Amino acid sequence: MKQVSLLGATGSIGLQTLEVLRLHKDEFSLYAMAFGKNIDKALPLIEEFNPAIIVVQDEMTKDKLEKEVNHSRIFSGSGGLIEASVADSVDVVVNAVMGSIGLPATLKAIEAKKSIAIANKETLVTAGHLVMDAARKHGVELLPVDSEHSAIYQCLNGESSKDISKLLITASGGSFRDKTRDQLKGVTVEDALNHPNWSMGAKITIDSASMMNKGLEVIEAHWLFGIPYDQIHVILHRESVIHSMVEFVDRSVMAQLGTPDMKVPIQYALTYPDRMELPITEQLNLEQIAALHFEKMDFERFPCLRMAYEAGREGGSMTTVLNAANEEAVQLFLEGRIDFLDIEYLIEKELSKHQVIHSPDLSTILSIDKRTREQVRSHLK
Amino acid sequence: MKQVSLLGATGSIGLQTLEVLRLHKDEFSLYAMAFGKNIDKALPLIEEFNPAIIVVQDEMTKDKLEKEVNHSRIFSGSGGLIEASVADSVDVVVNAVMGSIGLPATLKAIEAKKSIAIANKETLVTAGHLVMDAARKHGVELLPVDSEHSAIYQCLNGESSKDISKLLITASGGSFRDKTRDQLKGVTVEDALNHPNWSMGAKITIDSASMMNKGLEVIEAHWLFGIPYDQIHVILHRESVIHSMVEFVDRSVMAQLGTPDMKVPIQYALTYPDRMELPITEQLNLEQIAALHFEKMDFERFPCLRMAYEAGREGGSMTTVLNAANEEAVQLFLEGRIDFLDIEYLIEKELSKHQVIHSPDLSTILSIDKRTREQVRSHLK
Repeated sequence: MKQVSLLGATGSIGLQTLEVLRLHKDEFSLYAMAFGKNIDKALPLIEEFNPAIIVVQDEMTKDKLEKEVNHSRIFSGSGGLIEASVADSVDVVVNAVMGSIGLPATLKAIEAKKSIAIANKETLVTAGHLVMDAARKHGVELLPVDSEHSAIYQCLNGESSKDISKLLITASGGSFRDKTRDQLKGVTVEDALNHPNWSMGAKITIDSASMMNKGLEVIEAHWLFGIPYDQIHVILHRESVIHSMVEFVDRSVMAQLGTPDMKVPIQYALTYPDRMELPITEQLNLEQIAALHFEKMDFERFPCLRMAYEAGREGGSMTTVLNAANEEAVQLFLEGRIDFLDIEYLIEKELSKHQVIHSPDLSTILSIDKRTREQVRSHLK
Repeated sequence: MKQVSLLGATGSIGLQTLEVLRLHKDEFSLYAMAFGKNIDKALPLIEEFNPAIIVVQDEMTKDKLEKEVNHSRIFSGSGGLIEASVADSVDVVVNAVMGSIGLPATLKAIEAKKSIAIANKETLVTAGHLVMDAARKHGVELLPVDSEHSAIYQCLNGESSKDISKLLITASGGSFRDKTRDQLKGVTVEDALNHPNWSMGAKITIDSASMMNKGLEVIEAHWLFGIPYDQIHVILHRESVIHSMVEFVDRSVMAQLGTPDMKVPIQYALTYPDRMELPITEQLNLEQIAALHFEKMDFERFPCLRMAYEAGREGGSMTTVLNAANEEAVQLFLEGRIDFLDIEYLIEKELSKHQVIHSPDLSTILSIDKRTREQVRSHLK
């Protein structure tokens, strides 16, 4: 029986992780559960899974929750996330919190030699060198939950990394893929949240529309698989059936395909190197789909992807700025305070004025992250 | 340095195997080489690779060859193929002879614990139970060279066979895929040899046009991977970019893709579990290909595939009859003595009158093979 610590339990990935745990009650048990503030969503889950540790975002939420449930180990904040990640009984930490807040807990979980299923790409974008150094040092493997990285991970299973010639990350194009840049000027939050293929959280759906999501994935892939940026390609594939591919030195290309359902990569991260049945997921039916399409990525149409490659190649603190500026700008867009195209404008502004720091330590990263967010917000005053 | 024994050196797979050996002279050396009667084609290869053992089809060809080259170890016939397969120095046997003549040498090579790269699907179709029993007994792994089976082998690398839910073998449809059954009545040998995607030998190109090739592949896959026929599906995919796929119990589908070049699976069988560079093969460019198409297989349109499934499910000597009748009928078609649609008619005739023998031994198989060929030919008298 594997004991799971789930960070971000009430989010999209969190809820789907719980669906997987429900299917395999003899294999997995929820030991710890962290969520933000959504007590209404959390209460039935707490009752159902009865976790030994509960973590919430802040003290106020903790007080409210303590009035609702009789539980002796409720924690809050970043310290609480760490508590849930390093507890002795925990075998695997599923990091599905949103944004760079997942970073310190991930580092502590690695030090405690926990298996890590990582759905929080911002952790690697913000501090890939720290996370991967720690993983190497402690002999911990990071199991990706993103569908693209899970696809690559599955393609690499049984292969030697020296035989890789190229990673091919597929991109659906997001909700605005058929719009010109001119047509992007008037788009609303509602338009942006209407993703053609995947049902995901708000932040990642906006990131898909701006193609920043693919940019973050390129950086994540660089760290996870140790592949230079020149060997990571993005290809437009509107059906999202091929989740990503790896080309090897002998020209052979391996691909992982499936219906768009995050439960597949979530479960794979939990069962790796084995697989388990997943009857609640629809089978892929290529005869019905009939055709898969591929197009060249247009970096002028999608400047966020260009910026992500540039920041990635620059390295060091540059990707921390990229991520923090993006998180904050997307939040402002979701709040209705800026236009869609202002997202890329604000990110470009922060990147262009940042003096890169190579190999920043955790406190430097956290302070750059904080300062970047403040600067993005300051433009609105 | 791996010492290679190449059976079928002057055929399409044989010549492409030599291209691979030429690329990696520090890794591979040609120890033995077998061919049929084509001395003109063989002479420059003998000079270039200087094999320690040469095997030809018959005594007459041996006599002719001995006048051309000064070589002390020239053998002939089935005994010669065995000689080339079991020689102490040989590490890997590439079985690329055409038809069921490759069977006894394969069995002997397995007993001698040689690695076997198997391009000769008729061996498994004719006597899959004997070959696989021998392989299990002697702990020998059969490495497939067929592009479809190599694809499946690559998809299964690092996976557990208990996690397979389905094999998905792709079929281009062959040279007559856009013709109705009525339009097949007047087709010529030349039409049939004009395969849309792959450049291959005559027999396999005709088998592609009749879809018997896919039928033989289904039976080969059944034996190689130990998967029941109900879990082996064939899907029409006209671009031949996805070479085959495996669906796992968690709904994840792995696929292997590439340009249509047999050198990739040939080299993979030689380098497995590693890979090596293969610069002479073109890289896959999905952006240029733009679309991949999939259609449901039509068993009424392609009765050879239906017959192959039926013979496979019946098992025992039935697939020996299927293969022998097909080999002989295709030969008659290539000789211009029967029409294209007579191929399936002659096969169906032999299958319908055969009384299946379960678990036939080698001599029974060889005598059924011989009798079936005679019966097919007897219809012409």
